Amino acid sequence: MSQKNTSEQAPLFYAGVDGGGTKCRAELYDPSGNLLGAGVAGSANIARNGEVARQSILASVSAALQHANLPPEALQQTLVCGGFAGANLPSASNALKRWQHPFHSFYFTSDLHSALYGAHDGANGAVLVIGTGSCAAALKDGELTQYGGHGFLLGDKGSGAWLGKQAVIHTLEAIDDIQQKGALATAVCNHYQAHSATDLVDKLNQANPGVFGELCPIVLELANQQDPIAQALVQQGSSYLSAIARKAIAQSGGQLVLAGGVANALQHQLEADIQASLTASTHGPEWGAILLYQHGAFTEGAKL
Amino acid sequence: MSQKNTSEQAPLFYAGVDGGGTKCRAELYDPSGNLLGAGVAGSANIARNGEVARQSILASVSAALQHANLPPEALQQTLVCGGFAGANLPSASNALKRWQHPFHSFYFTSDLHSALYGAHDGANGAVLVIGTGSCAAALKDGELTQYGGHGFLLGDKGSGAWLGKQAVIHTLEAIDDIQQKGALATAVCNHYQAHSATDLVDKLNQANPGVFGELCPIVLELANQQDPIAQALVQQGSSYLSAIARKAIAQSGGQLVLAGGVANALQHQLEADIQASLTASTHGPEWGAILLYQHGAFTEGAKL
Repeated sequence: MSQKNTSEQAPLFYAGVDGGGTKCRAELYDPSGNLLGAGVAGSANIARNGEVARQSILASVSAALQHANLPPEALQQTLVCGGFAGANLPSASNALKRWQHPFHSFYFTSDLHSALYGAHDGANGAVLVIGTGSCAAALKDGELTQYGGHGFLLGDKGSGAWLGKQAVIHTLEAIDDIQQKGALATAVCNHYQAHSATDLVDKLNQANPGVFGELCPIVLELANQQDPIAQALVQQGSSYLSAIARKAIAQSGGQLVLAGGVANALQHQLEADIQASLTASTHGPEWGAILLYQHGAFTEGAKL
Repeated sequence: MSQKNTSEQAPLFYAGVDGGGTKCRAELYDPSGNLLGAGVAGSANIARNGEVARQSILASVSAALQHANLPPEALQQTLVCGGFAGANLPSASNALKRWQHPFHSFYFTSDLHSALYGAHDGANGAVLVIGTGSCAAALKDGELTQYGGHGFLLGDKGSGAWLGKQAVIHTLEAIDDIQQKGALATAVCNHYQAHSATDLVDKLNQANPGVFGELCPIVLELANQQDPIAQALVQQGSSYLSAIARKAIAQSGGQLVLAGGVANALQHQLEADIQASLTASTHGPEWGAILLYQHGAFTEGAKL
């Protein structure tokens, strides 16, 4: 594996990390690129909660080392490169740069960047991420252009958390009797064991996107059963996802790869021209992060 | 003024406080109900930030004492009764009950409750609050029923903060070129001095509802100028506000009073049957809180 010199001693191990709003996954490689192990931890959205994200990054790499039967001390010999949700925001990125990490060295970029780079092996192409959040991006001659990805409060339409949030908003209006109360409102109340609007708001007012994402399978299942409210939400989300994917495909001049935990479930809901542009991913986002390191293409600063 | 005995010494002063998402206003009275002074401070939404709310309550009452040329020590001789945004949520209400306040005694309920009680002098009737947040409520034989008021993340449609948030969401989609960029998107970028979607998200991702409410006058002005995007937002908000007001009017069997900082601007946008039910408020929410104390009608627990 080609590498930059970042320390007096070269790293013995390379960890590629993919950190999203719900989970963080690390793959551990030797210098020849052989996979040694993998590990998973919780949320690594660095814009939402930097402390939790740093714990998740450390936990996922530690789990990968353990999976490879390596001692915890091997952390210091591991070069970590990762893509993390929220890293496109300067405030979040600047905070992560200041992390006194325990690794050999640490490079990072956005989860979108590493996913995109891995998906097309660095060539021109687009990616549509549908997970806890949502986002599209184009890689064109090494340059990344992002569409959507504006976060839980202001965007992320069509994502798992957005579908869940819209289901809760509908339920609150159904409880107020200004929307018809049907199967979706009942399912939402049951899921959170809520008996009133106040109950629901009190439980969810400060909740993380992942808590809303818990409702995503329920919304998708009801949409499959032709529930009109659930169908309308899925339709509204898919229309937005198709729009940002279309921009990214056009910008890249290449094909589209889907990523994220909700992508499989929503793939057949995307508009026809988007489905016609789909191709399979070459590599996962973990290896994408390592490729970015190798090619010196990290757009975000690095903590050495 | 009739009163409950809450301490060995009767209070010399009575402060009625109205605390919303943007500001907190206190009116100070003597035991005969004569107005002595008034004071204003910042946000007092106890569900959003309890510490800030407690500071605002204290600051508004202190300012009212000062306005009445009374010394700071008079705080200990002042009975404070207030209505605060967020007090309908048990978690927020329980936290406020534990406050080691410096007053003679302290009673509180929701801002909706005190506004409603003051508006109809305790008689049956409805209120529609359109401020930083939005909410409707009915008082029927002393019993309060609430519609809407689900907070910035999950509701508050038609409110100042909601209009601002929708304007930002539109602007982000216009920057992504999946919505047409017009006067509203330009005005939003100018207001926050934002030069990109990332810039806008970084500034607003964790912002308080009040920061979004800053956009409300801009949205209303553009709607008046027939900007189609701004008009659609105002229309969508007014339709929701009319729906919750209609429920509250029917439940109360009485008339409707408007309250909140955005009410005047949106009054003529409400649907015809709602406008036909409007009446003027008998008292403000500050005196409404004192009336509730006098009638022993506080639904929330009190800290003595």
